[in-house]
Amino acid sequence: MIETPYLLFLGDAPDMLAAKVAIGIRDWRPDHAVGQISLPGCGADLGLTEMTLEEAKAAGAKTLVIGVANRGGIISPAWKEVLIKALEMGYDIASGLHNLLRDEGDLVAAAQTHGGTLHDVRVPTVGYPIANGVKRTGKRCLAVGTDCSVGKMYTALAMDAEMQKRGMKSTFRATGQTGILITGHGVPLDAVIADFMAGSIEYLTPDNDADHWDLIEGQGSLFHISYSGVTMALVHGGQPDALILCHEPTREHMRGLPGYSLPTLEELRDTALPLARKANPECQVVGISVNTQHLGEEEAVAYLKEVEDRMGLPAVDPYRHGAGRLVDALAAI
Amino acid sequence: MIETPYLLFLGDAPDMLAAKVAIGIRDWRPDHAVGQISLPGCGADLGLTEMTLEEAKAAGAKTLVIGVANRGGIISPAWKEVLIKALEMGYDIASGLHNLLRDEGDLVAAAQTHGGTLHDVRVPTVGYPIANGVKRTGKRCLAVGTDCSVGKMYTALAMDAEMQKRGMKSTFRATGQTGILITGHGVPLDAVIADFMAGSIEYLTPDNDADHWDLIEGQGSLFHISYSGVTMALVHGGQPDALILCHEPTREHMRGLPGYSLPTLEELRDTALPLARKANPECQVVGISVNTQHLGEEEAVAYLKEVEDRMGLPAVDPYRHGAGRLVDALAAI
Repeated sequence: MIETPYLLFLGDAPDMLAAKVAIGIRDWRPDHAVGQISLPGCGADLGLTEMTLEEAKAAGAKTLVIGVANRGGIISPAWKEVLIKALEMGYDIASGLHNLLRDEGDLVAAAQTHGGTLHDVRVPTVGYPIANGVKRTGKRCLAVGTDCSVGKMYTALAMDAEMQKRGMKSTFRATGQTGILITGHGVPLDAVIADFMAGSIEYLTPDNDADHWDLIEGQGSLFHISYSGVTMALVHGGQPDALILCHEPTREHMRGLPGYSLPTLEELRDTALPLARKANPECQVVGISVNTQHLGEEEAVAYLKEVEDRMGLPAVDPYRHGAGRLVDALAAI
Repeated sequence: MIETPYLLFLGDAPDMLAAKVAIGIRDWRPDHAVGQISLPGCGADLGLTEMTLEEAKAAGAKTLVIGVANRGGIISPAWKEVLIKALEMGYDIASGLHNLLRDEGDLVAAAQTHGGTLHDVRVPTVGYPIANGVKRTGKRCLAVGTDCSVGKMYTALAMDAEMQKRGMKSTFRATGQTGILITGHGVPLDAVIADFMAGSIEYLTPDNDADHWDLIEGQGSLFHISYSGVTMALVHGGQPDALILCHEPTREHMRGLPGYSLPTLEELRDTALPLARKANPECQVVGISVNTQHLGEEEAVAYLKEVEDRMGLPAVDPYRHGAGRLVDALAAI
């Protein structure tokens, strides 16, 4: 559990693309961010109040969150200066970087001296159980994709936001470092030991009220040969009542795998649903989320209509048109 | 790579059931074992020459292999006495126990003083890559099961032995601690970090001669909700040309999962084959291996015939009747 609110550290990020984590926090948990702090030459701007460490502290900030991916995986001396000063002032630090805060001697020393916590959210800190498959109370929705990086996290976050707006009971359940930094907790599934993957998802989505929905962040794809095992653990450990199929229609091959073509949405449905029903016989596919960012508006609308007619399920781009119809579909089961 | 030959340590094992690892080595790699060593009260006997550490050393033994599962996960003082003496004499030690040799200070100290190696085969020692899905030369066969512990390792070992006898090119590829101790190397897949599972299997089964077969040890089951992700990584990382379906017909529910019934062999075939073809479009299901240990001979023969007729594939119990027909099926593709 990472203490909120945050001050978002943008460092010397060259552009907004590098600031994915910070953007996610600003968009999905704006109450978590009191402001942003940049170094000279920073090319990213979230449009939040630019603050010094002192100003953010006065505004209540508890944790300095590294909101950018750095180049070459190095925590530079320029970054260190800010991070160490933050620890001296009583901040915790949270990071999803590949190179860990805990491997930096000077950060560890400063954290120990000043009683701060270094959160490396890529590294599991819980001893997860082996999955036992016992039926849990409450409901769960899992986003599964035809490929990696097709919008599964965005879909779950958008559905959670819509459900909150409607006064429904829901929780976004993060399974990757960006999601964990956005919400402050979760399971870094890709770093969990094989035998405990499904158990970590059972742990993440425990018994709940009968009308509560966990929106589980998907990872990988059952069709992505590098990461399909991770996805499988979500399908079985998540015990989903509902699946949302996610797709990006312009992709020419599976991400990072030239020569591997994407499955169709039908193939995804016909593979994922029978597998999911092993863990939850009541599971249904309730809707389709399409990432239409590379299509024009007219093209996107036509594509969504074609998919909707073909599959007999609501097909939406939650980024363009909102997640309302996906939530309607969830609410109906 | 564990140095051979071995002296097999049986400790104070209560019975033969506890000596699964030692039995596996005796049965599948008899040339690896110069003899056995037991403590007073040992209820297991492999029928090998009982030797002192000195006698085995004189016979060429390089590694003392812990061939038994211990109770309560504790390496007892009585065991320690033998293990430390072995290290003092220049042995390495290999173990698949949950509690690690490397966590025992006195063993570590003795190993360092005398230049010995402690092999904890449950723990990966290689930084595996992320799977890249590039097509590899040579052929691969993977055993997949309707459940865990239905005879997948036995099937692969029996096929490998038969292929060696016929002068075919084959290698058994271990993916669990027993298999690793039997052959001296492999990947402890259930202990690999999620993101690297499929990559570890690519690493284990590299390019080879066009007529060489890797017989990959299966793990878990696509239908076992606790471990299905591990199995999925084998199906995709293994890039199999051939699948063998493994089944135990008397089991009443999935191992460790009361309330979860086993899939049919048809369901296993129809789930595993399309997934495997994502990694290798040429993949075929070539045969069925049935563990008939709980059936009488007549009942077993009748069951195998029924399965063979129903599935249109050779169905054998390699323990009762040999793996010859499964190898015939492999050789035919």
